[in-house]
Amino acid sequence: MGLKNTLYDILANKDKKGLLYAIDDYFISGLILLNIVAIVLETYDPLFDKYYTYFHAFDLFSVAIFSVEYILRIWIADLVYPDLKPWQARFKYIFSFLGIADLLAILPFYIPFLIDLDLRVLRIVRLFRLFRIFKLAHYSDSMKMVVTVLKAKKYELFITVFGTSIILLLAASIMFHLEHEQQPDKFPNIFSSLWWAVATLTTIGYGDVFPVTGWGQILAAVTALFGIGLVAIPTSILSMGFMEELEKKKAEKEKPEEEKTITKEEFKYNYCPHCGEKLK
Amino acid sequence: MGLKNTLYDILANKDKKGLLYAIDDYFISGLILLNIVAIVLETYDPLFDKYYTYFHAFDLFSVAIFSVEYILRIWIADLVYPDLKPWQARFKYIFSFLGIADLLAILPFYIPFLIDLDLRVLRIVRLFRLFRIFKLAHYSDSMKMVVTVLKAKKYELFITVFGTSIILLLAASIMFHLEHEQQPDKFPNIFSSLWWAVATLTTIGYGDVFPVTGWGQILAAVTALFGIGLVAIPTSILSMGFMEELEKKKAEKEKPEEEKTITKEEFKYNYCPHCGEKLK
Amino acid sequence: MGLKNTLYDILANKDKKGLLYAIDDYFISGLILLNIVAIVLETYDPLFDKYYTYFHAFDLFSVAIFSVEYILRIWIADLVYPDLKPWQARFKYIFSFLGIADLLAILPFYIPFLIDLDLRVLRIVRLFRLFRIFKLAHYSDSMKMVVTVLKAKKYELFITVFGTSIILLLAASIMFHLEHEQQPDKFPNIFSSLWWAVATLTTIGYGDVFPVTGWGQILAAVTALFGIGLVAIPTSILSMGFMEELEKKKAEKEKPEEEKTITKEEFKYNYCPHCGEKLK
Amino acid sequence: MGLKNTLYDILANKDKKGLLYAIDDYFISGLILLNIVAIVLETYDPLFDKYYTYFHAFDLFSVAIFSVEYILRIWIADLVYPDLKPWQARFKYIFSFLGIADLLAILPFYIPFLIDLDLRVLRIVRLFRLFRIFKLAHYSDSMKMVVTVLKAKKYELFITVFGTSIILLLAASIMFHLEHEQQPDKFPNIFSSLWWAVATLTTIGYGDVFPVTGWGQILAAVTALFGIGLVAIPTSILSMGFMEELEKKKAEKEKPEEEKTITKEEFKYNYCPHCGEKLK
Repeated sequence: MGLKNTLYDILANKDKKGLLYAIDDYFISGLILLNIVAIVLETYDPLFDKYYTYFHAFDLFSVAIFSVEYILRIWIADLVYPDLKPWQARFKYIFSFLGIADLLAILPFYIPFLIDLDLRVLRIVRLFRLFRIFKLAHYSDSMKMVVTVLKAKKYELFITVFGTSIILLLAASIMFHLEHEQQPDKFPNIFSSLWWAVATLTTIGYGDVFPVTGWGQILAAVTALFGIGLVAIPTSILSMGFMEELEKKKAEKEKPEEEKTITKEEFKYNYCPHCGEKLK
Repeated sequence: MGLKNTLYDILANKDKKGLLYAIDDYFISGLILLNIVAIVLETYDPLFDKYYTYFHAFDLFSVAIFSVEYILRIWIADLVYPDLKPWQARFKYIFSFLGIADLLAILPFYIPFLIDLDLRVLRIVRLFRLFRIFKLAHYSDSMKMVVTVLKAKKYELFITVFGTSIILLLAASIMFHLEHEQQPDKFPNIFSSLWWAVATLTTIGYGDVFPVTGWGQILAAVTALFGIGLVAIPTSILSMGFMEELEKKKAEKEKPEEEKTITKEEFKYNYCPHCGEKLK
Repeated sequence: MGLKNTLYDILANKDKKGLLYAIDDYFISGLILLNIVAIVLETYDPLFDKYYTYFHAFDLFSVAIFSVEYILRIWIADLVYPDLKPWQARFKYIFSFLGIADLLAILPFYIPFLIDLDLRVLRIVRLFRLFRIFKLAHYSDSMKMVVTVLKAKKYELFITVFGTSIILLLAASIMFHLEHEQQPDKFPNIFSSLWWAVATLTTIGYGDVFPVTGWGQILAAVTALFGIGLVAIPTSILSMGFMEELEKKKAEKEKPEEEKTITKEEFKYNYCPHCGEKLK
Repeated sequence: MGLKNTLYDILANKDKKGLLYAIDDYFISGLILLNIVAIVLETYDPLFDKYYTYFHAFDLFSVAIFSVEYILRIWIADLVYPDLKPWQARFKYIFSFLGIADLLAILPFYIPFLIDLDLRVLRIVRLFRLFRIFKLAHYSDSMKMVVTVLKAKKYELFITVFGTSIILLLAASIMFHLEHEQQPDKFPNIFSSLWWAVATLTTIGYGDVFPVTGWGQILAAVTALFGIGLVAIPTSILSMGFMEELEKKKAEKEKPEEEKTITKEEFKYNYCPHCGEKLK
C-alpha cells in the first residue's frame, strides 16, 4: 500500500495492532506527558539552572518529533478526508481544532528565530507549549468523550452559562454600590466586585473580599442561598452528559458482536465489501 | 391589518420572520445588553470622567427607545389580551411582572426631573436601570424557562426554603450564645451570627467569622455535616426542574410536525379556521 | 361528643374546618414563630433593655398558653391512642419526641422557681426555649416529612455517617502528625485537627487552620479530592429521599378520589362503618 | 470437624451464630474501634503522660490479640481458598489487601525491637497503627461495599481522575506564570500553585493563596466556573455507585426466601448436597 498508506494507518489510529502502531501510540503519548512534567519541573529555578542542558535537549528532541508529525499529518490529510480535494483536505486539517493545537505545540520554539522578542513576552509564548496536552486527543478516547459531551449538551450549557453570567453581573453591580463607600479598596469598581461574586457563587470564598455592611451581607446571603443552585446546574448537566456517554460505551461493549454499530470507515477496513462478512 | 396589528405582531413575537421583526428582536436585545455593559463600565471613574458625554448620550438614546416601546406596549395591550376590555388589558400589562420591569427600566431617568433628590439617593435610584435586563424576557426563551421552572417547583421550593430558614435560625441562635462571650466583636448579636450560619451552610466560608471555643466548633461541625444536605436540596430541585424542562423542549422539537402541541393563539394565526390545515 | 372530644378534634388536627380549628392552627403556629423572633430580638442588648417589660410579658403569655396546651394534650392522650390504657397512652405522649419538645418549651420558665441557678447557667437553660420550634410539627406537614424521610433512609444514612466519621478521623490523625511540629498552635491535638478535617471535607475552608508543610498539603489535596465525594453522599441520599416523598405526595393529590389511601382513623371519622360510603 | 474447621467458621464469618462467633465479631470490632480512640487520645500530651501505663498496657494487649489472629488467619488460609495448594493459599492471604493491613496493624510494635530507630521516625512508624481500622473490613458489610463500588466504577473513576489531573495541572501552570512575579512568596513554583488549584477546584478556598492580578483573577474565575463541574463528576459517580449498591441490597433483602442468590460456599454449608433442600 506504500509508505503513505502505512503512515495513515498508524497516525489516524486505523490499524490497532502491530509494532509500529504500538510505538506511535505509547511513544507519542508518553512523550506528551513527559513534556508536561518537564514544563512543570522547569519552573523550579534551582532544578532548571542545574539541568539546563538536559531540559533544552529534551525540548529540542520533542519539537523535532512533533514537527515531523505535524508535517506528516498535513501530508496524509487527503487520505483522512478522501471526499475532499487534496488541498481542501490539508486546509481542513490545518484549521481543525487538533491541527491548530499541533501547530501551537511547536510554534513557541520557532518564534524566537523569526521575531525578536524581549524575555517577558518570550515566557508567555513558551506557555503555549502546554497546548501539547491537547495532542493527546489523537490517542485518548476519554479526551474524545469530553468533546462529545460538550457537543451533545451545548444548548443546555449555553442557557445556563448565560443565566449564570446575568446573576454574576447583577449581584456584582448591586454589591458594588452597597460596599464601595465602606470599603473603597476592596470594591474599587464592578470588575473587582465580580471577583467577589465568582468566589461567592462558586462557594470558594477565599475571604479576601466580603461585604461588611448590613445590606451588603443581606445581599450576599440572598445571592448565595438562591444563586448557588443556578450556578450548580452546568455541573449537573455535564455530570449527566458524561454518565450517559459512559453508559452508552458500556452498553456497546456488552452487545453481542453482530449488533455493534460501526462507522462507515471501520466497515471499509474490516469487512468484505462484497458479502459484508468480517475479515480476519 | 393596520399599524396596530403590525406592531402587535412584532412586539408580541408573533410573526417570527420579516425585516421588522429581526430589527426589533436583535436591535432591542442588543441594546439591553449594551446598557448593562455601560452601567458596569460607568463605575470605572476614570473611564466615566473621560467619556461622560458618550455615556450620557447613550443613556438618553436608550431611554427614548425604551419609553416609546413602553407606550406602544400599553397601546397594543388590548390585542395581547383580546378577551378583556381595553382598559382592563392595559391595566393588566402595566401591573404584570414585565410591565413593572419595563417601567422601572426608564423611571430612574425621569425621577430627577420630578423630585429633587440629593446625590446619594440618586445613585441608588440609577441602580434600578439594572431592571432593564428583565426586558430580555420579552425576547429570550431561556428567561421564560426560568419562570416556568420556578412556577412548576414552587411547592418544593417553599418547603425547603422554610426548612433552610429554620436551620439557619437555630444554628445562629445557639452559636451566638456559645461564642458571644469569647468573641463579642465577631458575634455581637444573632443577626451577625446569621451571617456566619449562611457562610457555613452554603460552604462559602469567607473566614471572617468562625467559632473558636470547643463547643462552638462542635456545633459548627455538626451543623456543617448535617445541614449542608438540607441546604443543597433546593439546588437539586431546581436542577431537576431545568433538566425536565429542557427534555420536554427537546422532545417537542423532535416530534413529527403533526403531533406538536400548539397554543390556541398560534393556531389562530397559522392554521385555517375552517379545515385546520396549516397556512403558508 | 363533649368537651374532650372537641378538644381532641382540634388539637390532633382531625377536624380541618371550623372556627376553633382555624384559631388553634393559625394562632399557635403564629405564636411559635413570634416566640422565635422574640428570642432572636432579645439578644440585641439595647432593644432588650428598652422593651424589657414587653419581652417579659410576651414570654409569660406564651408560657401560659403552652402550659395549658401541654396539660390538655396529656388529658386527651387516651383518645389519640385509643388501643392503649389511659395511663399508658399518657405515658406514651409524655415520652414521645413531641411530648418532650412540648415540655422543654415551657421548662426554662419554671426551673428558676424550683432551683437556685446562677445567671450563666440560667442563660443556657433559657436557650431551651428554642425547642418551641419543634412544636410546629403538630401543625406543619413539611416538618412531618423531614421525620418520614429520615426514617426511610436511616440505613443508608447510618452507613455514610459511619464512613464519613472514619475518613474524618483518619485524615485528622495523619494531618496532626504531619503538621504538629510546624504549627503547634494550630494543630495542638487531634481534636483541633478534626476541626480542620471538617472544614476541609465540607469544603467550607474558613482559612483559620490549613497545612503549610509539603506532605501536609499533599495529604490535604488527596483528602479533598477523594473525600468530598464520600461526604457528599448523605446529601444525595437526603435529596433523593425528599424528592421521592414529594413525588408520592403529588401523585396522591392527583389520584381520583376513590383510589386515595386513607388511614384507619380517617376511615373511622369520615366513612360509614356499615356500607363504607363516604359521609358528608 | 476439629479445631481448624471451627476456627475457620468463626474467623471467615461462616457460622453466623453461636457464642464463639459473637465473641469474635463484637469483641474484635470493639477492640479495633477502641484502638482508634486510644491513638487519638494519646496525642493529648497531658492525658498521655498521666495514663502512660494504661495506654501501654492496652497497646500490648491489642498487639497480642492481633498477632494471634494474624497467625491463625495464615494457618486457616488453605480452608479459605480450598482450590489452591496450602502454601499458595497462605501466600495469597499474606499479600491480599487485608493480609497486608493485618500485618501493618501489628508491625509498628515489633519494629523497634528489630531496628534501632530515632524517636522521630518511630512516631511515623507508630502512625501505621491506624491501619488497624481496615481490619474492620473482615467484619463490616459497609466496608465491603466501599470496595465493591470502587471496583464497579473503576473505569469511570480513572477517566475523571485523569481529566481532573490535567485541569489541575493546566490551571496551576498558567496561574504560576501569571502570578509568580507579583506574589513570588505565594507562587514560588508550580507545585505551590497546584495547592491553589486544588483549594479552588474543590471550592475549599482556605484563603492562604489567591490571585491578585487582573489576568490571574480572570483565569481563577474561568477555572472555577468551568472546572468545578468536572471535578464534581467523580463525586456524582461514587454517589450513584453507592446508591445502586444499596438498592440492590434492599431488593435482595425483600426477595422471597427461595429467590435469594447464594454463593457456592453458602450452598455447601446450608443446603443438602443430595436434594438441594435447606438444612436446619
